[in-house]
Amino acid sequence: MSLQPWERQAQKGRDILQNSVPKQWLLPEDKLPPASQKDVTDVPVQCGLLSEHEVAITNLSATQLVAEMGQGKLSAEEVVIAFLKRSVLGHQLLNFATEFLADEAISRAKELDDYYKKTGKLVGPLHGVPISVKEHVAIKNKTCNTGYVAWVDQVASEDAYLLQLLHKAGAVFHVRTNQPQSLMHLCCENNITGKTLNPFNRTLTPGGSSGGEGAAAGFRCSPLGIGTDIGGSIRAPAAFCGGYGFKPTALRNPMAGCRVACLGQETILGVIGPLGSSSLDDLELFQRAVLDQEPWETDTSLVPLPWKRVTPTRDITIAIMWDDGCVRPHPPVTRALRLAKEKLSAAGITVVDWEPYKHQYGWDILSKLYYPDGASLQRKMLQESGEPALPLSEWAFSYGPKTPLTHPEAWVLQFQRTMYRAEYHGLIKSRGVDFIISPAYPGVAAVYGESHYWHYTAIWNLLDLPAVIFPSGLHVDPKLDALNGEDESYKPRNEIDEREWKKYQSPERYEGAPIGLQIAGRHFKDEETLAAAKIVEDIMKEGAPVSGH
Amino acid sequence: MSLQPWERQAQKGRDILQNSVPKQWLLPEDKLPPASQKDVTDVPVQCGLLSEHEVAITNLSATQLVAEMGQGKLSAEEVVIAFLKRSVLGHQLLNFATEFLADEAISRAKELDDYYKKTGKLVGPLHGVPISVKEHVAIKNKTCNTGYVAWVDQVASEDAYLLQLLHKAGAVFHVRTNQPQSLMHLCCENNITGKTLNPFNRTLTPGGSSGGEGAAAGFRCSPLGIGTDIGGSIRAPAAFCGGYGFKPTALRNPMAGCRVACLGQETILGVIGPLGSSSLDDLELFQRAVLDQEPWETDTSLVPLPWKRVTPTRDITIAIMWDDGCVRPHPPVTRALRLAKEKLSAAGITVVDWEPYKHQYGWDILSKLYYPDGASLQRKMLQESGEPALPLSEWAFSYGPKTPLTHPEAWVLQFQRTMYRAEYHGLIKSRGVDFIISPAYPGVAAVYGESHYWHYTAIWNLLDLPAVIFPSGLHVDPKLDALNGEDESYKPRNEIDEREWKKYQSPERYEGAPIGLQIAGRHFKDEETLAAAKIVEDIMKEGAPVSGH
Repeated sequence: MSLQPWERQAQKGRDILQNSVPKQWLLPEDKLPPASQKDVTDVPVQCGLLSEHEVAITNLSATQLVAEMGQGKLSAEEVVIAFLKRSVLGHQLLNFATEFLADEAISRAKELDDYYKKTGKLVGPLHGVPISVKEHVAIKNKTCNTGYVAWVDQVASEDAYLLQLLHKAGAVFHVRTNQPQSLMHLCCENNITGKTLNPFNRTLTPGGSSGGEGAAAGFRCSPLGIGTDIGGSIRAPAAFCGGYGFKPTALRNPMAGCRVACLGQETILGVIGPLGSSSLDDLELFQRAVLDQEPWETDTSLVPLPWKRVTPTRDITIAIMWDDGCVRPHPPVTRALRLAKEKLSAAGITVVDWEPYKHQYGWDILSKLYYPDGASLQRKMLQESGEPALPLSEWAFSYGPKTPLTHPEAWVLQFQRTMYRAEYHGLIKSRGVDFIISPAYPGVAAVYGESHYWHYTAIWNLLDLPAVIFPSGLHVDPKLDALNGEDESYKPRNEIDEREWKKYQSPERYEGAPIGLQIAGRHFKDEETLAAAKIVEDIMKEGAPVSGH
Repeated sequence: MSLQPWERQAQKGRDILQNSVPKQWLLPEDKLPPASQKDVTDVPVQCGLLSEHEVAITNLSATQLVAEMGQGKLSAEEVVIAFLKRSVLGHQLLNFATEFLADEAISRAKELDDYYKKTGKLVGPLHGVPISVKEHVAIKNKTCNTGYVAWVDQVASEDAYLLQLLHKAGAVFHVRTNQPQSLMHLCCENNITGKTLNPFNRTLTPGGSSGGEGAAAGFRCSPLGIGTDIGGSIRAPAAFCGGYGFKPTALRNPMAGCRVACLGQETILGVIGPLGSSSLDDLELFQRAVLDQEPWETDTSLVPLPWKRVTPTRDITIAIMWDDGCVRPHPPVTRALRLAKEKLSAAGITVVDWEPYKHQYGWDILSKLYYPDGASLQRKMLQESGEPALPLSEWAFSYGPKTPLTHPEAWVLQFQRTMYRAEYHGLIKSRGVDFIISPAYPGVAAVYGESHYWHYTAIWNLLDLPAVIFPSGLHVDPKLDALNGEDESYKPRNEIDEREWKKYQSPERYEGAPIGLQIAGRHFKDEETLAAAKIVEDIMKEGAPVSGH
C-alpha cells in the first residue's frame, strides 16, 4: 500500500528527528527494557550508558549545576553531554524528543567553558544549564511544526525572543520536545512524532501539551525546560511526571516567536514558562534570568514588572480546594491534599477549606473563548496536509461553538471573563486567603487518550492567576488508594463527574504514578506564589510521612 | 406634525438635563451675548453672574484649590458653588452639560467642610475639587445614555469604579458632560443634548468624544474632568479648547463602569483619564489620587504599577513630528511646532526631527480594529430607538469593514498591531528619542462637522503610548497664519491630504482658536511623559514669545 501524501510529509519530520539523534549514545536495542516494562525511571542508573559521574550530574538541579560550574568543579561540556546521553536514552524509552541539538549544544558549552577559563566568571545566571525546548518555540534555521504535518518543513527565521534571553543568560539548548497535534491535548500525540510516554508508567500519558517537557523533567533529561500553557499545558505534564512547573500571570514572560495556528488570538492568552526536574528554586532561577533582562523593553505586549525578590514566609493563609464542585478528584489526589493539610497545619500555617466559586460557569466561558471561530484555523491546518484529526483534537475542538461566534457574542464572553476574574479575586481577598492548593487534574497521569477534563488547571488560565506544580512526594499506592466505602458509594453529580470517576476503576491502572499538587496565588503575585510553593514543599518534605499516607 | 417615538424618547433626556439646571444661577436671556458672538471666554468676567471672588476661584487650578482649602482659606462649598455658577453659564453658552448635580455636590462639599472643621485635615488629595464627568461614566441611580436615544432612561446601579476612587480622594462631582452619538466623533453632537460648542469660537467644534469636557475645561467650568479616549477622545477636546488632557497607557486607570455599546471589545482598548483647565500638575494630581489607591487590587484587568514620583529633567531628547506623512498640518499648528523647537533648542534640550513610521499602515490596522463587526452593535443601538445616524457617526462606522471580519481575519490584524507596536517602540529607542511632540490634529479645532482625520491622536492609541495635550500658548492669528507662498503651492499627496488641506481656506475660519500640542512618551512611561510635558510647557512659557510667532 502506498503512503498518503500527508504520511510522506510526516516522514520528513521523523527524518529530521532521526538524523539528529547522536547515534553514539544509543543504548543497543537488546539492552532496552521490554516494552511491557511500565516504570523506566531506574534505567539510567541500571543500563550502564551513563557513568556514575554522569548520573550524578543529571541528578543535580540547575541551581546546583550553576554553583558547581561557578566553582570550576564541572564544565559546561561535561554537563551537557551527561544530559544529552540521558536524553537519548529517554527518547528511546519515551519518544519525547522532536530534534536533538547535540552539536550546537556541545559547541555552545565549549564556548561557555572558554569564557569561564579566560575570565573566571560565568556568562550569566543560567551559565551552562541545559534547557529543553518545546518544539513550537521557534529556533532560527530549524523547522517549527507545532505538531502539524502541514508545517513540518517550515523553517523559522529567528529564535523565539525567550530563547534569546535565556541564551544571553548562559543557557544551552540541547533537545527539542514533543507536543500534541494542535497543542490542545492534556496529552502528547501527533501524526509526526507519535506518542510520548510517561516515565513512571508507560501506559500513562506524560500530559500535555508540553508533554515532551513533562517526560524530560520526569526522566531528568534536562534540569529546566520551556513549556507553554493556555489550559494546563505546563502544569499537567509537570504534575503527571513528578516534576515542577510554573504558569506565570499572562504578559510577564515573552511569547513572541512561539508558532501557533491562531497567532493574534487574544480571547484567552497563553503563557510561556519553565518546567523543572528538580526544584522550585530552579523555576525561580529561570524567571529571574528572564525578567532581569527587562523583556518588556523589546516585547511591548509585556507588562513592565521586574521580578521581585520575595522572602518566603509562613505567615500566610492557605486554602485547600478539595473538589471544584464539578468533578470529584480520585483517591490518590485527595490523599495528597490531606497530607498537605495535616503537615501545613502541624507546621502552624493557617489552612482553610476553599469553596469553589462558579467553576462550571467559568468553564462555559473559557471553553467557548478557546475557539470563538469554531476551531476553523486548527481544522484548516489539518486539511492543509490531509492528516487525520486525532481523537483528543476532536475532543478539544468540540469545546468551541459549532458555528463561529459573532464578534459581539465573543465580546459578551470576554466581558463575563473580566467580571468573573474581578469577582473571584474579590472573594479570595474577602476570605483572607493568600494561596489555594488544589488538584492539578481529577487524577494522577491519565491513561493514554483519557485526559479529558482540563478545568483544574484551566480555571487559573481563565482567572489569570499564577500557579505552580510541585510533587507531593507521594505516588499511587494500591493499598492506600483502593476505593473504599466512601468512594464506592459515591454518586456522581453529573455525566462528566461520572465519566471521570469511572476512570478510577482501581489504583492499579495508575501504578507508580507520582501525585503532583497545584498552588495558585493572586493575580500578578507570581513571586509570592513561587515562594509559598517553596514553603509548602519544604513542610511536606519535613520529617517522616504522616501515618496513613 | 407629531413627534416620532425616538424624538419623544430623546426629549426625556433633555428633560433630565433641564430639570437639573439650578435655575437661580441662569443668566437672563437678554444678558447673554448674541448667538453670533463667537468667542465667549470673557463672558464670566463681564456678565456679573459670578462675583470677583468666584471668578478668582474658578481661575485656580485643582492643585491651588486643594492648597487653599488645606489652609482654610476656601471652603469646599464656596468652591463648588463658584464652579456650578460658571457651569450654568457655560451651559447656556455652549450646551456642554447633560445633567447638573448641584444638590448632591453642595451637600458633599458641606460634608467635606465639616470634616475639615472637625479634624483640621483634608479628606484626601482631591479634597473639595469639583470634577466634571463625561456622561457615559456611570453614576449610581442616574441615567446613563452614552449619547444613544435608546438608553436615555437606563439607570446605573452603581458608580463607575473610577468615581468611587475619586470620591474617596475627596472629589466633588458637580456636572455631567456631553458626548457625541456612538462616542466615535472627534466632535460633540447627539440627538438628545444636541451640539456642544467651542468656547473660543462657537462655530467650531469643542472636539470629542469628550467634547463636553473640552468645553468645560476651556470655559473653566471645572478644574478637572473625566474623559475617555480610544482614538483621541480626551486629547482632541483638550487641544481644541485650550485645555490639558492625558491619555494614559491602557490598563492603568480603571474603565469599569463606563457604559459602551461594545462592552467586552478588546481589539483596541479605550482608556479613561483626566482633562484639565489649568495645569499639567492637576493631571498628575488626578493620576496620583487614583493610582495611589491601588485600583488593580479591585479591577483585575489593570496592571499593578504604582504611580511613580518622577522628577522632571531637561536631560531628554525630544523629537518633533512635523507631519505624519499622510496629512499635512495647517499653518497654525506648524507655527506652534516651530515655536516649540526654537524654545526647546534655546533652552538646551536636544531636539530632533521625527520621521513617522508607516502611519498609513497603522491606520489601516486600527480603523478595522475599531469595528471588526462592521459596527453592528452601534447600528443596532440606533435601530433600537429609530434615531437617525448623524453624519459623523456614519463617517466613523465607515472605517469598519462592510461585512464583519471573521475571527481569524481580526487575529491577523491584532498580530500586526502587536508587531507594529514592538517595531515602533524599537525605532523610538534606536533613534535615542524619549518623547515625540506632534500635532494633535491636522489643524486647530475643526469647523463643526468637519473633524474627519483622527490619526494624529489615534496613532498613539494603536501604539498604546501615553500622550499629553498642553496649550502652546498660541492662538490662530490671521496675520501669522495666512497661507503664504510655500503653503499656496502645496500639492497634496492624496485625496485625504487634499480634503484636509482644503479645510484651511483662511485663518479667519478658525479665528481665536487655541493651538494645542501633543507629547507622547514610551509605552508605560506615563509619569515620565507628564513630567516631560511640564518641562516643555515651562520652557514654552519662559520669556517673551520668539519673534515671528
